[in-house]
Amino acid sequence: MKRIGMLTSGGDCQALNATMRGVVKGLTNLYKKDVEIYGFLQGYRGLMRDEYKLLKSEDFSGILTKGGTILGSSRQPFKQMGIPTEDGIDKVPAMIDTYKKHKLDCLVVLGGNGSQKTANLLSENGLNVIGLPKTIDNDLWGTDMTFGFQSAVDIATEAIDCIHTTASSHNRIFIVEVMGHKVGWITLHAGIAGGADIILLPEIPYDIKKVCDALDKRTEQGKGFSILAVAEGAISKEVAKLPKKERKKIIAERKYPSVAYEIAEQIRDYSGKEVRVTVPGHTQRGGSPDPFDRVLSSRFGAYAAELIKKQEYGQLVVLKGSEVTSIPLSESAGKLKYVSPDDDIVHDARLLGISFGD
Amino acid sequence: MKRIGMLTSGGDCQALNATMRGVVKGLTNLYKKDVEIYGFLQGYRGLMRDEYKLLKSEDFSGILTKGGTILGSSRQPFKQMGIPTEDGIDKVPAMIDTYKKHKLDCLVVLGGNGSQKTANLLSENGLNVIGLPKTIDNDLWGTDMTFGFQSAVDIATEAIDCIHTTASSHNRIFIVEVMGHKVGWITLHAGIAGGADIILLPEIPYDIKKVCDALDKRTEQGKGFSILAVAEGAISKEVAKLPKKERKKIIAERKYPSVAYEIAEQIRDYSGKEVRVTVPGHTQRGGSPDPFDRVLSSRFGAYAAELIKKQEYGQLVVLKGSEVTSIPLSESAGKLKYVSPDDDIVHDARLLGISFGD
Amino acid sequence: MKRIGMLTSGGDCQALNATMRGVVKGLTNLYKKDVEIYGFLQGYRGLMRDEYKLLKSEDFSGILTKGGTILGSSRQPFKQMGIPTEDGIDKVPAMIDTYKKHKLDCLVVLGGNGSQKTANLLSENGLNVIGLPKTIDNDLWGTDMTFGFQSAVDIATEAIDCIHTTASSHNRIFIVEVMGHKVGWITLHAGIAGGADIILLPEIPYDIKKVCDALDKRTEQGKGFSILAVAEGAISKEVAKLPKKERKKIIAERKYPSVAYEIAEQIRDYSGKEVRVTVPGHTQRGGSPDPFDRVLSSRFGAYAAELIKKQEYGQLVVLKGSEVTSIPLSESAGKLKYVSPDDDIVHDARLLGISFGD
Amino acid sequence: MKRIGMLTSGGDCQALNATMRGVVKGLTNLYKKDVEIYGFLQGYRGLMRDEYKLLKSEDFSGILTKGGTILGSSRQPFKQMGIPTEDGIDKVPAMIDTYKKHKLDCLVVLGGNGSQKTANLLSENGLNVIGLPKTIDNDLWGTDMTFGFQSAVDIATEAIDCIHTTASSHNRIFIVEVMGHKVGWITLHAGIAGGADIILLPEIPYDIKKVCDALDKRTEQGKGFSILAVAEGAISKEVAKLPKKERKKIIAERKYPSVAYEIAEQIRDYSGKEVRVTVPGHTQRGGSPDPFDRVLSSRFGAYAAELIKKQEYGQLVVLKGSEVTSIPLSESAGKLKYVSPDDDIVHDARLLGISFGD
Repeated sequence: MKRIGMLTSGGDCQALNATMRGVVKGLTNLYKKDVEIYGFLQGYRGLMRDEYKLLKSEDFSGILTKGGTILGSSRQPFKQMGIPTEDGIDKVPAMIDTYKKHKLDCLVVLGGNGSQKTANLLSENGLNVIGLPKTIDNDLWGTDMTFGFQSAVDIATEAIDCIHTTASSHNRIFIVEVMGHKVGWITLHAGIAGGADIILLPEIPYDIKKVCDALDKRTEQGKGFSILAVAEGAISKEVAKLPKKERKKIIAERKYPSVAYEIAEQIRDYSGKEVRVTVPGHTQRGGSPDPFDRVLSSRFGAYAAELIKKQEYGQLVVLKGSEVTSIPLSESAGKLKYVSPDDDIVHDARLLGISFGD
Repeated sequence: MKRIGMLTSGGDCQALNATMRGVVKGLTNLYKKDVEIYGFLQGYRGLMRDEYKLLKSEDFSGILTKGGTILGSSRQPFKQMGIPTEDGIDKVPAMIDTYKKHKLDCLVVLGGNGSQKTANLLSENGLNVIGLPKTIDNDLWGTDMTFGFQSAVDIATEAIDCIHTTASSHNRIFIVEVMGHKVGWITLHAGIAGGADIILLPEIPYDIKKVCDALDKRTEQGKGFSILAVAEGAISKEVAKLPKKERKKIIAERKYPSVAYEIAEQIRDYSGKEVRVTVPGHTQRGGSPDPFDRVLSSRFGAYAAELIKKQEYGQLVVLKGSEVTSIPLSESAGKLKYVSPDDDIVHDARLLGISFGD
Repeated sequence: MKRIGMLTSGGDCQALNATMRGVVKGLTNLYKKDVEIYGFLQGYRGLMRDEYKLLKSEDFSGILTKGGTILGSSRQPFKQMGIPTEDGIDKVPAMIDTYKKHKLDCLVVLGGNGSQKTANLLSENGLNVIGLPKTIDNDLWGTDMTFGFQSAVDIATEAIDCIHTTASSHNRIFIVEVMGHKVGWITLHAGIAGGADIILLPEIPYDIKKVCDALDKRTEQGKGFSILAVAEGAISKEVAKLPKKERKKIIAERKYPSVAYEIAEQIRDYSGKEVRVTVPGHTQRGGSPDPFDRVLSSRFGAYAAELIKKQEYGQLVVLKGSEVTSIPLSESAGKLKYVSPDDDIVHDARLLGISFGD
Repeated sequence: MKRIGMLTSGGDCQALNATMRGVVKGLTNLYKKDVEIYGFLQGYRGLMRDEYKLLKSEDFSGILTKGGTILGSSRQPFKQMGIPTEDGIDKVPAMIDTYKKHKLDCLVVLGGNGSQKTANLLSENGLNVIGLPKTIDNDLWGTDMTFGFQSAVDIATEAIDCIHTTASSHNRIFIVEVMGHKVGWITLHAGIAGGADIILLPEIPYDIKKVCDALDKRTEQGKGFSILAVAEGAISKEVAKLPKKERKKIIAERKYPSVAYEIAEQIRDYSGKEVRVTVPGHTQRGGSPDPFDRVLSSRFGAYAAELIKKQEYGQLVVLKGSEVTSIPLSESAGKLKYVSPDDDIVHDARLLGISFGD
């Protein structure tokens, strides 16, 4: 009898359930009935506190299209429990205890950057761990694509699409704020897909003058309206230059609930132009996974099952080109995949006439 | 040769183009080629300034599904042009001049409450006018349904659907802010359709204690998450009680860009609970009309063409039950259709367990 | 303790679960915990065979948006069990026995025309029965709208939308076959909503010459493509004239799996024009209910709960205009609501330039 | 002044307009106003007959999301014009003449396998040609992804999703016929994404016994329903073994309009099980491109503009992993990219419990 633990950690996203279904379908095929699935509740918290449910294959029936996670999730369990992430040292023993108590053969962790860092820590402490690259942000180092990303892009793009018709009817300027505090992948893709005129990313600090120049250029071309796709973490050149501490302070003390309102004000102040703001927010991580994510996550899940069968642990399942494969958890841990101003896709976007306000 | 003027006025919405297509297809059928369509640009502004394009039936090909308006629109032209709406008296002659200059047989106005008031004014001044009930808000007095409403409900509901999966995965409280400054129809319908737990409307002022009680009740029932559908114009009982002037002042001085953030803060202050906010905003008036709106607006348009043929002017096309008919513009002008706390649908919503925080 | 039986009968559709959720939420509110729900499986079959599950309110959590029915359904149980529907006399006692055995206070039947006829039969035999008007076909006599209808229209319209772009790119003629063997409501609404050029309905027999004339007229107007929305039960004038028996024979012996292929051949034979066929089929009854249906069915469900509370049995919940109300089951039983060639909406469709091939 | 010809050839698909918009935006950026676009109508036919329109950048405004092609398309122009494709020799001079007459600097061809073969022929005859990989089938040799493919997968998946709810409510077997006469990529992806139980592809001939075994296995597992995703070109082992000529004859003489109906009959004959059929057909190439395709095709278009700027002709723009690049047209011409039974994704699908009926 194989005993497999599984948990979903960090911000939820589309295709978490689809991925777990893939793992369990794969395991069921490889081990027939000879496998037990321990689903730990609310991410690592369930592992620390030994809170779980035993899952049967029926539990995975019909969840391919279901958003969210049937196991629940939680963010930053170390921090939440009063202990800083960095030295999660006391918590690790608790998790190891749970693992050993149930004589698990492997722990499957569906999570993003922070969660895979913890997964690697557990792996280094001797547990058999497989990571699966979850995040709408697509910022996990080592994989071309994370599951959840494309579905999030779909929702952000749909928001831009809707804004397009109203913006063009009224000759207005609109900002659509897209998820992404540290990285701009969703904004970049949704911006291109939605036909945004200006895209502002955390990785490419903007100059409000350049942004307004781009708006003026639109007007000169006879285009009465403009759409900005702005990442949550968009940042001006002045602020980006500051030391980290000061930067954080400025952001924390922002008078608006999110950056889009601030940029709207900056545009108004600089150019006198009225700007309207839309914040689709958490809708971007909700709803059904799109077909792309369902195929990707099903394949990721099946691949994880095979790694378990082959006892290749300490691995993160990844996509390279169109191939599903894996890399050591340690290789990815702690690294983020940022948009680079030199990326081909940024170059292509500029060719399409999109301004990055830089 | 019949000469028909047409304009779209006020905030844009879905199915404006579909409605105009209906009018023009109807006219083309009734008058064969013997009809000329003057499309005035940017709403009443185009009529005042004699800015228009002559439209051919090709211009209406393929626009059934297209959001926005091919004629452009503008809000409150009287106010914008420096003259208060109430005494639009100087502007009316200009519009009458344009009408007479082109020897128009009828002016077709697609607009909401304010726009139909102006349409009625023009009608009272001797022009032949037909109104078509446009608005996502469904607040036009005299019709069971305006076009745009159902499509706006769809988008707001989709936002709530997406929030549902993420809210339930993380056991969180979410506010989805839905369009509607004065009336709560979209919020009410989208709230029911999206399975919201609490619905806050302009017409039913809330008590933050009652809101928090409803949240507590959810927790007691073992439901870890809650969703609030909150109209832009949601208002607390304290503020609702104030004289209009004071109320407006409070709203104008609100420190947040919209009400949802304020209510989130009130909940946090009162109960200590964290609340997240989503503002789909103008997406609700964008994108393609849904099939319901396309049928409704096509029928509205065809009916308007028949009214013209029968020379029955001064009418607003409306839906009564499932019948398309018309009422005098004067009957609707200046009246809003509010949600009443005694409406059956509010009663039904309460039966479904939805709290209105009152 | 109230004991309520519930079943879903006939072809499935969207919003069955949403309606049941409405009933149960309503009952829970009215009776607090003092109510037991017996969910009979596979429609009337479960009632005959006493196959059911006791449902808790958790079972209704999250099913507002879920297509299909958590109770399962079956078509024509009388016929399937070897006994013709007409004299279901032996089966009725079995159903009454089950009802009495569990001391039910009421049986709630979600079903279409045939199912409500049986509901009425049970009511006449002394059971307390409430009917809820389910069917994508919208052909239930006595209600302006059934739940499922608008969602089916959405899917059929989406199919026509997709066909539009490919038809116009290639200057082709396309038939989209829409559900509806006896009545044409879905085809009529989806046809108008999708901008079909020709609509063929069971209630308005077509003349293939007139169909081809309409196609020629499109060509003359310089329109390179045409789209036909054709109901499953579309019928030519020649066949419609025949006695019922002969008509049925001809339809049964049709060499194609469905009518669209046959009409495509008739057009080819008569005019030499190539026609392509799309059959979205059962997709039209699947997937999530749209927001319109969710509101309608939630209200229907809540209303049914109130009828139970008021002990007003033998009623079918219906929509009249925008009011949810009820009529005696006996009033609706056995009657279908057909499209009439004189209906306003047919008149409007003709005004829009749509041909019915008649 | 640069003079660029452009045409869309073969079956239409999503993102044709988006790709052309990318090319034109790219050219406008690289050459400023110094570029003229000749849009040849109805594919190669327009080039042969010198039928075109001069396109301005306004023509490309708002078409990012528009399905179909603003230039029109035609299939197999050589064959249609009475001359077999193989020796299109007379037609090539006509196309070269048009090219030279307008002193074109480059011809941009958006097309699939056959169209790129012709593009290569023109290139070999001295014209400057750039190919862009269009096809929903994803069967173009040399690129990981064609534009149109993912959008087609979305629509096919949506059909399977809808069928899921109805199949499970009624315990039925359903076939969804997916586009793909020669290759099974759409069926394979949509089958996995839609959670199909059985996938039948042209490249993996099926044995009806094995198909029925897989259905029986579902029943044994207590699953009352099954869904088959079947490619248009699905083929049984017996027929696949026959010489090409005989095989073609059998397919041509098939009594049903498409393969799904035939397989439904085979299952019924072999196992007595009733099977229902859905044929979404051409809907799969219609409607708006999804965000994935919009990004891909925009980048493809921009890349083509750069190739022109760099005078690197005779190239097909392709995707390798996540990099947009190009290969010589001659490398791809005449080769199809088939699904192989040994592909990882087929292996993964089997792991997920999907049967290929082989």
